[in-house]
Amino acid sequence: MKFEYQKLVQDGAARRGKITTAHGEIDTPTFMPVGTAATVKGMLPEQVAETGAQILLGNTYHLMLRPGAERVAALGGLHQFMNWDKPILTDSGGFQVMSLSKLRKITEEGVTFQSHVDGSRHHLSPERSMEIQYLLDADISMAFDECTPFPSDEKTAAESMRLSMRWAQRSKDAFKQRDGYGLFGIVQGSIYPELRAESAEALKAIGFDGYAIGGLAVGEGQELMFQTLEKTIPHLPGDRPRYLMGVGKPSDLVGAVLRGVDMFDCVLPTRSGRTAQAFTRRGTINFMNARHADDPRPLDPDCTCYTCRKTSRAYINHLLKCDEMLGPMLITRHNLHYYQELMTGMRDAIGAGRLELFAAEFHAQYEGGDIPEI
Amino acid sequence: MKFEYQKLVQDGAARRGKITTAHGEIDTPTFMPVGTAATVKGMLPEQVAETGAQILLGNTYHLMLRPGAERVAALGGLHQFMNWDKPILTDSGGFQVMSLSKLRKITEEGVTFQSHVDGSRHHLSPERSMEIQYLLDADISMAFDECTPFPSDEKTAAESMRLSMRWAQRSKDAFKQRDGYGLFGIVQGSIYPELRAESAEALKAIGFDGYAIGGLAVGEGQELMFQTLEKTIPHLPGDRPRYLMGVGKPSDLVGAVLRGVDMFDCVLPTRSGRTAQAFTRRGTINFMNARHADDPRPLDPDCTCYTCRKTSRAYINHLLKCDEMLGPMLITRHNLHYYQELMTGMRDAIGAGRLELFAAEFHAQYEGGDIPEI
Repeated sequence: MKFEYQKLVQDGAARRGKITTAHGEIDTPTFMPVGTAATVKGMLPEQVAETGAQILLGNTYHLMLRPGAERVAALGGLHQFMNWDKPILTDSGGFQVMSLSKLRKITEEGVTFQSHVDGSRHHLSPERSMEIQYLLDADISMAFDECTPFPSDEKTAAESMRLSMRWAQRSKDAFKQRDGYGLFGIVQGSIYPELRAESAEALKAIGFDGYAIGGLAVGEGQELMFQTLEKTIPHLPGDRPRYLMGVGKPSDLVGAVLRGVDMFDCVLPTRSGRTAQAFTRRGTINFMNARHADDPRPLDPDCTCYTCRKTSRAYINHLLKCDEMLGPMLITRHNLHYYQELMTGMRDAIGAGRLELFAAEFHAQYEGGDIPEI
Repeated sequence: MKFEYQKLVQDGAARRGKITTAHGEIDTPTFMPVGTAATVKGMLPEQVAETGAQILLGNTYHLMLRPGAERVAALGGLHQFMNWDKPILTDSGGFQVMSLSKLRKITEEGVTFQSHVDGSRHHLSPERSMEIQYLLDADISMAFDECTPFPSDEKTAAESMRLSMRWAQRSKDAFKQRDGYGLFGIVQGSIYPELRAESAEALKAIGFDGYAIGGLAVGEGQELMFQTLEKTIPHLPGDRPRYLMGVGKPSDLVGAVLRGVDMFDCVLPTRSGRTAQAFTRRGTINFMNARHADDPRPLDPDCTCYTCRKTSRAYINHLLKCDEMLGPMLITRHNLHYYQELMTGMRDAIGAGRLELFAAEFHAQYEGGDIPEI
């Protein structure tokens, strides 16, 4: 089976499509829950699949430290290790080396760093990143890049982007081609349109199975992020998936799909599940708030997820106040379901040629606020 | 429907039976997982039921503090609140007032104490305990008692037990009779056979739907616990269930069933799930141990639980090292399954008149130790 992207419907800049991988198909636009350390925190794999998720993201940085890529390979790969038989995308490790590790040293060759867990020394390069992602058995590997910090002046951003482009070529050279497995390049260039264009063209010249847009959602704000997307996406090939890394809030997803993005990942639905914040059609709700203590209604009355079918706001509020594991488990499950329903809604709307209308309705309801108190 | 106990088979002192309650039947001997704060920690109710559990224990002390008995009642009772439609037994609150609360003051009337959560002042008496358990909608309520500390001299133990017997009468008087709901008395008397006999006779004279043996598993050791059971159980009526409170390790359960006990509860399988300790046919195993890091075999190769069917020792070890919620979730699920399988094994063995043989086989395997390292 070939790794491939099929565009099925176009609606404005937005696309409804399908990615075929060694471990199954992915309907796009898609949202990938984050399974950092070979687990989506607090969720069983079946529960993740039940939300509608078709692909997970695993973090190369975390997995290379614990349990180690060679160990995962010896245990049959990441799918078997974590009992997830659908597609997996792994990041390249570059982003988290920058954000989590200690005493980093970057050279043309790669990056040397100390583990945030135990201080042990490690090395990543395009070649080692490709090897790790191969050992993990990721359906989609990401080219090794440097995530340019924000803000960066244009000269710094250009140097950083050009280093990432040289690393992209080395990633492509080191990637082992296998049926059903793909490699994505990552566009950098901060918020500078000329750099983004240069980066996109450089990646196209190398040739990838998909194109990610990196270095966004790092503090630039939604407006600048959308502007950068608008300047970048026209330089990407139409017959390959486009992946906006580390994004985002529901309104980020809607705005980016409208601008032609096909794939997303973000810790927001899972991390928020552990900080009492639920995403609903009516915006975010903090369930630690005492106003929920006597409320027998579900978290989101319009939602069909396990949490909303089986439990009440009062119960969730109680669990959170008691610091019971089940609280984060239930909110995480709802949040992931909400994100997947949002993606399903957008896919259906694109199919019907009405994504603009869907977006308007989404905003109206999202900004309308929670149901009235009882 | 009447609350009742039916003895089906006797095998030595051991009994196979059935309890009928407002929320369903319970096959005895039975083990009740502990759902302290209206949740079995880290488990969904369906998952608890899937292990074979037919009844849960809820803690009156915890629930009266958070979320509050009146609140639970307004939300439809504990079954609806926590989404568990099978029977629930609640303890009387007495034990945890002694072990958890601050600044306790015990009088003939009852006990005044400060919450361990926020220092707020509360009062429990036989009458208030009955009211709380009624509001929670417990299928089985427990008489309010004082759990005599261990060790206590005979005079202290006698005074404490006689206070509990007066409270037992007040509990009975305050208990609201409803079809399918029962009230159990609690035998006290520490390790003194004459006091245990006196207590059992006093409770029988009052008349309860079942008889619990309290004040054990508080440091006296297994041998003295078994001796006390042997001196107590002959004084209990044969046509009512017998419940050994807060017990215990697998070998405690086997020894107590052999001596005629029908019901147990203990935090051990759930608490151990959060401290990396798994119960298996071959004894307890600590899954933080590095020897499991590369082991692809299930936690217990002879077990059919979710955890053993779906995951490896290596994966569980990894989750625990990373402090991932899923580690405790998976071990807890296995442990509860193990406890229920042990009870099923004992019920079947009693049915076949071979519990002594079952017990011998249990000990031989349990003490044989873990499977050899690979």
